[in-house]
Amino acid sequence: MNDHTLLPQVNIPANMIHLGLGQPTNSLLPLNDIKNAAAHALSVNNPFFLAYGKEQGNINFRETLAQFLTGQYAYTVGPDQLLITNGNSQALDFICTHFTHPGDTVFVEEPSYFLALKIFVDRKLNIVGIPMDGYGLDIDALKKFLNSKKPTFVYTIPAYHNPASVTLSLQRREELVRICSENNILLVADEVYHCLSYTEKPPPSMGYWADQCLLISLGSFSKILAPGLRLGWMQANSKLIQKLSKAGILESGGGFNPFTSEIVNSVIRSGILTTHINRLKDVYRQRIEVFVEQSTKSFPEQVVFQYPSGGYFIWVELPDYIDTKFLRQAAKTDNVDFLPGSFFSSKNRLKNYIRLSFAFYPKEILREGIKRLGNILLKHLS
Amino acid sequence: MNDHTLLPQVNIPANMIHLGLGQPTNSLLPLNDIKNAAAHALSVNNPFFLAYGKEQGNINFRETLAQFLTGQYAYTVGPDQLLITNGNSQALDFICTHFTHPGDTVFVEEPSYFLALKIFVDRKLNIVGIPMDGYGLDIDALKKFLNSKKPTFVYTIPAYHNPASVTLSLQRREELVRICSENNILLVADEVYHCLSYTEKPPPSMGYWADQCLLISLGSFSKILAPGLRLGWMQANSKLIQKLSKAGILESGGGFNPFTSEIVNSVIRSGILTTHINRLKDVYRQRIEVFVEQSTKSFPEQVVFQYPSGGYFIWVELPDYIDTKFLRQAAKTDNVDFLPGSFFSSKNRLKNYIRLSFAFYPKEILREGIKRLGNILLKHLS
Repeated sequence: MNDHTLLPQVNIPANMIHLGLGQPTNSLLPLNDIKNAAAHALSVNNPFFLAYGKEQGNINFRETLAQFLTGQYAYTVGPDQLLITNGNSQALDFICTHFTHPGDTVFVEEPSYFLALKIFVDRKLNIVGIPMDGYGLDIDALKKFLNSKKPTFVYTIPAYHNPASVTLSLQRREELVRICSENNILLVADEVYHCLSYTEKPPPSMGYWADQCLLISLGSFSKILAPGLRLGWMQANSKLIQKLSKAGILESGGGFNPFTSEIVNSVIRSGILTTHINRLKDVYRQRIEVFVEQSTKSFPEQVVFQYPSGGYFIWVELPDYIDTKFLRQAAKTDNVDFLPGSFFSSKNRLKNYIRLSFAFYPKEILREGIKRLGNILLKHLS
Repeated sequence: MNDHTLLPQVNIPANMIHLGLGQPTNSLLPLNDIKNAAAHALSVNNPFFLAYGKEQGNINFRETLAQFLTGQYAYTVGPDQLLITNGNSQALDFICTHFTHPGDTVFVEEPSYFLALKIFVDRKLNIVGIPMDGYGLDIDALKKFLNSKKPTFVYTIPAYHNPASVTLSLQRREELVRICSENNILLVADEVYHCLSYTEKPPPSMGYWADQCLLISLGSFSKILAPGLRLGWMQANSKLIQKLSKAGILESGGGFNPFTSEIVNSVIRSGILTTHINRLKDVYRQRIEVFVEQSTKSFPEQVVFQYPSGGYFIWVELPDYIDTKFLRQAAKTDNVDFLPGSFFSSKNRLKNYIRLSFAFYPKEILREGIKRLGNILLKHLS
């Protein structure tokens, strides 16, 4: 039943249900579609994708991707605005190389994606967390922080935030762009969940404002196709893309991933990607329903969370006398796990939060996990 | 005849023969083998290679690679000594992140691989070129330089050097390891051409000494299979590999290239890679013969070069009154091109050298290119 034991990066006991895991199950990885796409992509005479590629990414793939994004984002994206990456983790690393020095300050949301924080720590950056609320990054708080320190860049997860699940409102997007423009600050938007909307569409992805300020929008096939492909893109003003394409690593290596790009080119052109995204949306929508239904029954009243409208996560607030790092020990004993809120804090705060995800388990295991977690919460909440 | 116009990173006029290009022709990219390997790798039930992978690289692939390298290197390589990379350019970038600060010094060979130098420039490193001779890096010169400055690391290309074609002798390898050990300096060996030996075998790859000093040996599938795969490996002491595997980018991304790793796993296990390397050796051996035969006829006597015993390159010395940057202009007019020596110098020296390669063109085009270059040389050498 639990096929997670077969996944390389997941190392948990067989009876454990780990509600914190932010990745798709084996059954949601479209092996057969990718197999067919590979067979198609490799049935050609000219193996240009086996040679050193264009620094920016090969043009045929950027054209396909631009067309796909134009459909998903509902505004025109051009191939000259795209640089192909090895996914958002690598893109963040690349951005650090080209914009930061050790000791520089970066503003992140509080909470933020904990492994992005680790990438910034590896670059010896000074991480400052800016508060969020139900509409995303708190712009007034951002302004206050700017009075004391100017960051090299602001890192934001605008749609279906990891872990907070909220989406930055249109008005705040516009304000954020204006502030970054006025202060000449790079805005880095991690839009990896943007295409996974289950109820209403989010505001335009941040790439929409790429000509208004120094801005890089990061997208990835990790959540909409398969993380093991290590394929994604940067979207930015074409002049900035040209500049970044001159990096030594790109000239030497010949683009970040020409081979996989060509296989994904086939996946997109055949229409499979759009079909697959729609399937993911259906599956995740149903899992959210199970989550809401079962948690309503199993969780004590003091537990607060927002019904997710997209992405992977549910950010659960517990009473402030709870430290979820300790609660986690008790949970593990009862074979259920989650990620404690402090993981996502740049200041070791948010101790009364937990991150849950509905992406990993099929409905019935998810339901059982929520029951187990509910029992733990009932025991520990007064 | 010239299928290079189909390669994304190659942008030269149709009638030009560019003898400086360091990459294989389309006809040497084993499209059909990779197609079969992909079909095989993707015909399984468990798509673990589509999920986030192990930080270090998935174990089944590391086991296959360790076995392959044990055969190629003629000493035992273990899977715990390997970390899978996106090729040597990315590995160098990763090493810079984890070992250097802007302003640090790195020792390179003079000459060295020009695009590695660009990666170091992007990291704002202070590049110091150490002289070479016919046996590789000049160890006495290295010692002298060490008296005035200790580098963060030494970057060397020990076998079939790019561009100098020479191979570091066994005795010098041992001395280099001893010096790095005594001075606690990281030794980074770019061994991308090690497996492409055409006459006699080179001394053991530097990974052989991985327990003797802080050392990382870089290998890649770019020259022995296909550069577009963006797949390679680091070989080091297993403790160092463990430490590097904890990088934020690897934890977040789940290994550098799990999908392509699994396809190349099939290529190796089926025996295709060894067969392909043997084919490459045959082809390149024949091209070297053509090169030597035709250049003996066409080049003036003052032109000096060493018969290459492996790798891709011929490093040609011209009389010291020649500046090959200017000579290049004349050559291009006559539809032949090369890379001027100054590209490979950290000090804008080596102006009377040119880098040629026999890897890119089939024999008859290579012959024609050498004839054209010979005519240019005859005109400009007194």
